Amino acid sequence: MSDKSKPVAKARAISGFPEYTPEIRRAELRWIDAIRETFERYGYVNIETPSVEEVETLAAKGGDVDKEIYGLQRLNAEGEDKGARLALHFDLTVPTARYVAQHFNELTFPFKRYQIQRVWRGERPQEGRFREFLQCDVDVIDQDGISHDFDAEIPLIALQALNAVGAGPIRFMMNNRKILIGFYEGLGIEKAGDVIRVVDKIDKLPVEEIERILVEELGLPADAARACLALAQIRSTDNSFANDARKLGVENTLFEEGLSELTTVMDRLNAADIGDSVVEANLAIARGLDYYTGVVYEAQLIDYPEYSTICAGGRYADLVGAYIKRDLPGVGISIGLTRLFAKLLKEGEIKPERASPTDVLIARFPENDVLELDAIANALRGRGINVEVYHEATKLKNQFRYAERKAIPYLWFAGDTNEVKDLGAGAQAEADPASWLPARLKT
Amino acid sequence: MSDKSKPVAKARAISGFPEYTPEIRRAELRWIDAIRETFERYGYVNIETPSVEEVETLAAKGGDVDKEIYGLQRLNAEGEDKGARLALHFDLTVPTARYVAQHFNELTFPFKRYQIQRVWRGERPQEGRFREFLQCDVDVIDQDGISHDFDAEIPLIALQALNAVGAGPIRFMMNNRKILIGFYEGLGIEKAGDVIRVVDKIDKLPVEEIERILVEELGLPADAARACLALAQIRSTDNSFANDARKLGVENTLFEEGLSELTTVMDRLNAADIGDSVVEANLAIARGLDYYTGVVYEAQLIDYPEYSTICAGGRYADLVGAYIKRDLPGVGISIGLTRLFAKLLKEGEIKPERASPTDVLIARFPENDVLELDAIANALRGRGINVEVYHEATKLKNQFRYAERKAIPYLWFAGDTNEVKDLGAGAQAEADPASWLPARLKT
Repeated sequence: MSDKSKPVAKARAISGFPEYTPEIRRAELRWIDAIRETFERYGYVNIETPSVEEVETLAAKGGDVDKEIYGLQRLNAEGEDKGARLALHFDLTVPTARYVAQHFNELTFPFKRYQIQRVWRGERPQEGRFREFLQCDVDVIDQDGISHDFDAEIPLIALQALNAVGAGPIRFMMNNRKILIGFYEGLGIEKAGDVIRVVDKIDKLPVEEIERILVEELGLPADAARACLALAQIRSTDNSFANDARKLGVENTLFEEGLSELTTVMDRLNAADIGDSVVEANLAIARGLDYYTGVVYEAQLIDYPEYSTICAGGRYADLVGAYIKRDLPGVGISIGLTRLFAKLLKEGEIKPERASPTDVLIARFPENDVLELDAIANALRGRGINVEVYHEATKLKNQFRYAERKAIPYLWFAGDTNEVKDLGAGAQAEADPASWLPARLKT
Repeated sequence: MSDKSKPVAKARAISGFPEYTPEIRRAELRWIDAIRETFERYGYVNIETPSVEEVETLAAKGGDVDKEIYGLQRLNAEGEDKGARLALHFDLTVPTARYVAQHFNELTFPFKRYQIQRVWRGERPQEGRFREFLQCDVDVIDQDGISHDFDAEIPLIALQALNAVGAGPIRFMMNNRKILIGFYEGLGIEKAGDVIRVVDKIDKLPVEEIERILVEELGLPADAARACLALAQIRSTDNSFANDARKLGVENTLFEEGLSELTTVMDRLNAADIGDSVVEANLAIARGLDYYTGVVYEAQLIDYPEYSTICAGGRYADLVGAYIKRDLPGVGISIGLTRLFAKLLKEGEIKPERASPTDVLIARFPENDVLELDAIANALRGRGINVEVYHEATKLKNQFRYAERKAIPYLWFAGDTNEVKDLGAGAQAEADPASWLPARLKT
């Protein structure tokens, strides 16, 4: 069947679409499993939505996201069938809004769901940017109002998920948009949104430059600009942020409400066991300008402070937008799994796994009856052990080499008595297929 | 924040793109987990490929599949950037071929991989057809030659996976294309491919009609046509098929080779524990006309004999096609998860799961300190228990109703002594957060 004259095309990766060898994929799968498990520990249920939505559904989000949307086009289809009525989703928020509206009467509220799916953005690929990537979202959505409990629970779940995958110490930065809006109101500033947009750059521009923009471009009085900057510079890992903020002398009900909400959130997070990670009240955090209405948060890797946000979220007043004539407020967070995984892989923080899940290779020689080897393999498999029977009777050397290349930890020799060789330790001992366990499964 | 005047759009499903409520999604997730576990029990490793390939890569497969391919088009992009150079994959075989070629030097052969991913086909949606669906493929690929062991192992893995999800009794029908080709050769028939195509319809057309086509349209002598039909009607669950085939009096080396290979495969499958399922040698099975070169198989649901093939595969001479100047033969099988799941769901064979993974709801009253409830929840979570703390201090009735609607099996009352109520059995007893277990986790 061989045809050595066949043409050879180049198999190549497509920029922006990650693909891993089995060793790395197993590490990624371990991440996904750990995140899933963490979300379920808190009682959140998995949903999946189609990869596509109608273009109008996606476009309803507005903004300049259109350019990044991948429309679908049936190749070789004729006429109107050809046009892009469907497009790949670019996040999981828009599909969830449509899902909740569509299945409204089938869901129990507060609806606690998590979603781990690929999303697509047609942006120009560059270091650390992907056109296809996995996003892990966890949200709770309720009708008309939603408990402030979730202001703390949602970031805590994300933090525990990041700890569970071993992403390293995380800095979780929390704020509440009521603090900002209320403070600006108290100062008599009308263009709160514009001020937030400018102050949000506090980590990127010098303080003097931000002050200049607030005064010269937004027309704030100099003392108001300085107060805004002072507020944005407040940080604390305990609840001292509240008194520091009050010392700035602004009195406003919304401001006080925000301080009180954030204090409660900080109390609950600080009471949890979060390992080496740090929870910080950070009054510069602003997030999505129109969407969020209460607590907001974003997280960074402490060991890579220059690296951008790894997860972010907050409280919103209405998820479902145009679908339902009532408000469905929620609290949610999104972890950009692919970007974070790729970053830690590049930094050598993620170790490749073995290239196979196999625990035991059953050696095979001409004198063995393959049906007897199968019987041993099946007895082991029945107890949760991953087993390969070597695929041909050949020299032991070849079978050793195969086990070594795949880093299979045990080699099994069948016979009147069975023996197992621990390929790491080198020891060989008698073993019973009905009771033997690899180290992985011993408690 | 409420705006009751907001416009209401209709949230609707997109035909051909399945989406489930949480209860059904949990059942689907259980299927995926069971299939994954089965594949890993045999030492197969997971890979994923991007959802897209370059259009040329997909088109290289040839045939009339082009029309079904969804190309990607960046909405609002300008100029050449707009054209569809990328398209969604329509199966997992083409991406795997590209993957193996691209990562050739990083893989250990025989390369045993499984892949569970969404694939897309732009066909007209109809009952039981999907435009987006999950496919579960398991293949082993080797260099230059590949052990006949896998002729039996691959269908056995698929059968075990289908048993693991509880798909009901399966009829696994096996053949070997060498039997057919060798038999036709032995009869002096030149157009073996054409004969296969006609005989393949034996379950759809009356025998007389097939005989007529073979004689009148393909020009076979009447006795050769009758011999072809007699071969195609041979079935056996033991190895009697081989003698039945030999009785037809054709002598040919390839034919004998095929009978011998199929006998070995049947022996191994019949020695395995496959529950209520049935393995049958069925000499009418032909599968993909050009692709397969040895053993071929397809499976049906015994309880739904009118329902089409649920998984299929076989041995092929060269996976990688145009990429590499050597042959990479393999044996593989593909389970159409979404179609099978949808069929069994429709028939009531799949029971929805609970709408949540929660084991325990911790009740909350005004006298409880939420940090203490959190501590109990975290102690339980640390031992693998899924826990929700009720999100507000409210009437017991409301909390009961929430637990009931989400079918949460236990309600926890915190206090100087903790008590747990089993909501199914009704019993309430003292419980220690450090040791209590729900029935699900008791061994």
